[in-house]
Amino acid sequence: MEQIKDGWFSEKNDLWPGQFFSLEVESILHHEKSKYQDILVLETKNHGTTLILDGIIQCTQSDEFAYQEMISFLPLCAHHDPKSVLIVGGGDGGVAREVSKHPLVKEIIQVEIDEKVIEVSKKYLPFMAKGFSSPKLKLNICDGFEYMRQHKSQFDVIITDSSDPIGPAVNLFTETYFKLLKDALKPDGIICSQGGTLWSQLEHVQDTISNCKKHFDVVDYAINSVPTYPTGQIGYVIASLNPNANLRLPKFLIQDKQAEELDLRFYNSDVHSAAFVLPNFAKKVLSW
Amino acid sequence: MEQIKDGWFSEKNDLWPGQFFSLEVESILHHEKSKYQDILVLETKNHGTTLILDGIIQCTQSDEFAYQEMISFLPLCAHHDPKSVLIVGGGDGGVAREVSKHPLVKEIIQVEIDEKVIEVSKKYLPFMAKGFSSPKLKLNICDGFEYMRQHKSQFDVIITDSSDPIGPAVNLFTETYFKLLKDALKPDGIICSQGGTLWSQLEHVQDTISNCKKHFDVVDYAINSVPTYPTGQIGYVIASLNPNANLRLPKFLIQDKQAEELDLRFYNSDVHSAAFVLPNFAKKVLSW
Repeated sequence: MEQIKDGWFSEKNDLWPGQFFSLEVESILHHEKSKYQDILVLETKNHGTTLILDGIIQCTQSDEFAYQEMISFLPLCAHHDPKSVLIVGGGDGGVAREVSKHPLVKEIIQVEIDEKVIEVSKKYLPFMAKGFSSPKLKLNICDGFEYMRQHKSQFDVIITDSSDPIGPAVNLFTETYFKLLKDALKPDGIICSQGGTLWSQLEHVQDTISNCKKHFDVVDYAINSVPTYPTGQIGYVIASLNPNANLRLPKFLIQDKQAEELDLRFYNSDVHSAAFVLPNFAKKVLSW
Repeated sequence: MEQIKDGWFSEKNDLWPGQFFSLEVESILHHEKSKYQDILVLETKNHGTTLILDGIIQCTQSDEFAYQEMISFLPLCAHHDPKSVLIVGGGDGGVAREVSKHPLVKEIIQVEIDEKVIEVSKKYLPFMAKGFSSPKLKLNICDGFEYMRQHKSQFDVIITDSSDPIGPAVNLFTETYFKLLKDALKPDGIICSQGGTLWSQLEHVQDTISNCKKHFDVVDYAINSVPTYPTGQIGYVIASLNPNANLRLPKFLIQDKQAEELDLRFYNSDVHSAAFVLPNFAKKVLSW
């Protein structure tokens, strides 16, 4: 709680030295240390209810939709028929909320290791936790690695909604993890993982992509704006087992009318394709 | 200087209540109050030399290129032959640096009201101020409004590099200002102005676009990522007097090789078109 001082939460962290972002706090709604992490929920002045894990902002009510929609709809719409989806992590329920909106999705399995995050989200972050109420969803409290070892060739799409690629979630960006993802996918399956940020973690993004390329035929990287994340942007590693896949061209189209019907505030088919366009400094290093 | 405390500069401001961004300070290189504004130059730990006007970060060495390249190359590449360019503001020299790179530009006039910003930039921010050395450039210390009143139908492109659309620079976003811009342009001219941010100033963006539409046939809005600006993103109002213009399709193409030759670290032709793709929440309000 030393991050809260004079009514402000400051996200100081060695992951982004020399800078930090602060949010004005109206009240502390919840604080506990679970078996896995420090869980803090704040009511903030201008960004609504905010979930913070191990001192890092995971989502604020004001902009969480940008991340949740993109990490879900990028792989779902890049797949021709995403019937069966696995979500690894995502304990706040936001990704389940988005995935369950997609008309072609029939079955969602979610594996989250920390049931305390789910409990806390259900209580304080109902705008995300409503994802857990989807009749399409089956939620398992267990280790994603273990689950995938026992469920081979089963999913059309696997989404890994984790914290940053450096720090506690580092195992979710290794070659071993991408091998597990590959084996849990059906032959033409697609994965999407939170993939760090170009501006402050470009070498880590490069490493993650290299690890992914060892097991996937087509690997790509997309970005979008999320104001309360460090550098105001987040990236996604998205990959397909189909050697002819073009992940930049959505197969399932969502234009204005359908976006409205699905309550999508960020994602549409044009946003999908534009998200893969990288600035020169990143394109050069990631060598597309 | 009350914004610097315990070795950190904090950008608290009523323009973005409930949040602020902080940079670790290595040293204060310069501080003065000019006739027009408070000028502060910091050496920061992870973002290099940083220019701050009236307490607001204008540019850091680490990411200024993203803004300077976009505000310059969006209008220049949307024009079929941008021979003559006017820059209003831009006292740090960054926009002049970028505009002077464009092969079709023959003559650049820059009008900046505060010569102190120019002096300070020449001394402490040579990586931007080198724009002032361009043989294409003629620099005038004067009021942009006054200059344009006296120079009608003269420019192919006019770039307004100002501070935010609310606060001191508010006059640069009014209908009167867009009328002045229109009259200073040649018949098929294009303008580009810093246009605030979608995430925290959407109504102001909407107002600016309405003002612009009163005088320009084609008005559009583009965005890109700049990590050290509030919300990590900045927008541009770009408009043409040519009723058939499509500002989203660059007429002058810049792919990888030429981007490298022109030392463009952010802009390329794909980035140009992608910058106009807006998330649903913004598209709806700005009604394209």
